[in-house]
Amino acid sequence: MGLETRFLAQYALLPEDLRFQVADSGGWGHKKPMKSLTEQLWFETPHRRDYLNITDTVESLVRKSGVQEGLCLVNAMHITASVYINDAEDGLLHDYDVWLEKLAPHAPTSQYQHNRTGEDNADAHMKRQVMGREVVVAVTKGKLDLGPWEQIFYGEFDGRRKKRVLVKIIGE
Amino acid sequence: MGLETRFLAQYALLPEDLRFQVADSGGWGHKKPMKSLTEQLWFETPHRRDYLNITDTVESLVRKSGVQEGLCLVNAMHITASVYINDAEDGLLHDYDVWLEKLAPHAPTSQYQHNRTGEDNADAHMKRQVMGREVVVAVTKGKLDLGPWEQIFYGEFDGRRKKRVLVKIIGE
Amino acid sequence: MGLETRFLAQYALLPEDLRFQVADSGGWGHKKPMKSLTEQLWFETPHRRDYLNITDTVESLVRKSGVQEGLCLVNAMHITASVYINDAEDGLLHDYDVWLEKLAPHAPTSQYQHNRTGEDNADAHMKRQVMGREVVVAVTKGKLDLGPWEQIFYGEFDGRRKKRVLVKIIGE
Repeated sequence: MGLETRFLAQYALLPEDLRFQVADSGGWGHKKPMKSLTEQLWFETPHRRDYLNITDTVESLVRKSGVQEGLCLVNAMHITASVYINDAEDGLLHDYDVWLEKLAPHAPTSQYQHNRTGEDNADAHMKRQVMGREVVVAVTKGKLDLGPWEQIFYGEFDGRRKKRVLVKIIGE
Repeated sequence: MGLETRFLAQYALLPEDLRFQVADSGGWGHKKPMKSLTEQLWFETPHRRDYLNITDTVESLVRKSGVQEGLCLVNAMHITASVYINDAEDGLLHDYDVWLEKLAPHAPTSQYQHNRTGEDNADAHMKRQVMGREVVVAVTKGKLDLGPWEQIFYGEFDGRRKKRVLVKIIGE
Repeated sequence: MGLETRFLAQYALLPEDLRFQVADSGGWGHKKPMKSLTEQLWFETPHRRDYLNITDTVESLVRKSGVQEGLCLVNAMHITASVYINDAEDGLLHDYDVWLEKLAPHAPTSQYQHNRTGEDNADAHMKRQVMGREVVVAVTKGKLDLGPWEQIFYGEFDGRRKKRVLVKIIGE
């Protein structure tokens, strides 16, 4: 049986997302082609500022990707929001909120030139820089390789409208 | 001599860490080998602090790389500068500048031990930490996968001399 | 028709952006499968706050990985510590320490709700956000692609106990 024939026989038996891999391995078995997955998460938070734990959602996307060893990028697609990693503890979320308001106060809104454009969210652009735009998390043995208390959060600083987070997973 | 025979002959001659790679060449045009591109961008800004939109330049490097699905790292190579993502709006750039000067004032320069080395840029090392060293952006279908207002900026906090940004793109 | 002949026939039929991939599979030892390495570094610093240069350790892991072109993620696995890149200059480390204490003071500990859980480290969760959780460094020609003064630091803000840093290297 020729190489191409064997290839087609295998192809028919596999679930769709594995077909590519077998196609790639051509019968040699040591192949590790790159995989990737791209998904968007949508949010519309009830308050101007909110902090949402999205760890389980990202973990489920890692499973879906089939990536065993790689990197997982999670980033806010909007410039008044953050994705960051820290503790899922209500007291701390309150403390962050107070602290960020001290570092970059919302009011008076007239203190910011950006707000002359008709916006009132200049402070949100600053709070997001302190907390960061993105996290990059290792994927090891098919899972997010997080420390014991690491949780992935979506930090919203100008909510009450639809906004997105991008999850991109690459690896083998 | 057939392909498989030549293949085996070469196999024996290769160092161990290359053997696996040659084994990979048995497939049929479905290969997605990793690609990468590394480039440096040079800047010499006219003022101590400047904010430059480098999105188009990075986008053109993504095209050059040929990467369809992957990650694009853009980082300052100097420790008194940032690469960050936010809005290309002049009022906001002004606001950032005022805000960073409040969080980490340049003067009096004597307040910082680092400046005893003959430097006067300790504040720039702090401003850069607030704004960040790097961004990692997803590459999807051959393009930077940015949200509607996301723009990549070079933030210079101790300019008037030649400095570099590194762009590294990996993927398939 | 031999394998090589069929290969060339396919080449002619493919869109331009796929030729590279197919061209790549025709060669001998030009394959670039993905490699990865995952390691944890352990720390137990003597003080509540410490700043450790870990550049050489990370560099040695890049050599160990065998990756020539790729990305190296280095992240704190604990949420009261940072991995960041800046200058290995004692005066600056002192300045960072003073500055972070000003932005997010440790005392009075009662100012933070998080500390009602029995912790006294709420300030450490904030200091770590300013300095960042992680760095992503390009690997080029088998080495960390760092600028002239870039050094990788572990920033500890709640030490005197065992904590970890994750190093994940992926590439070809």
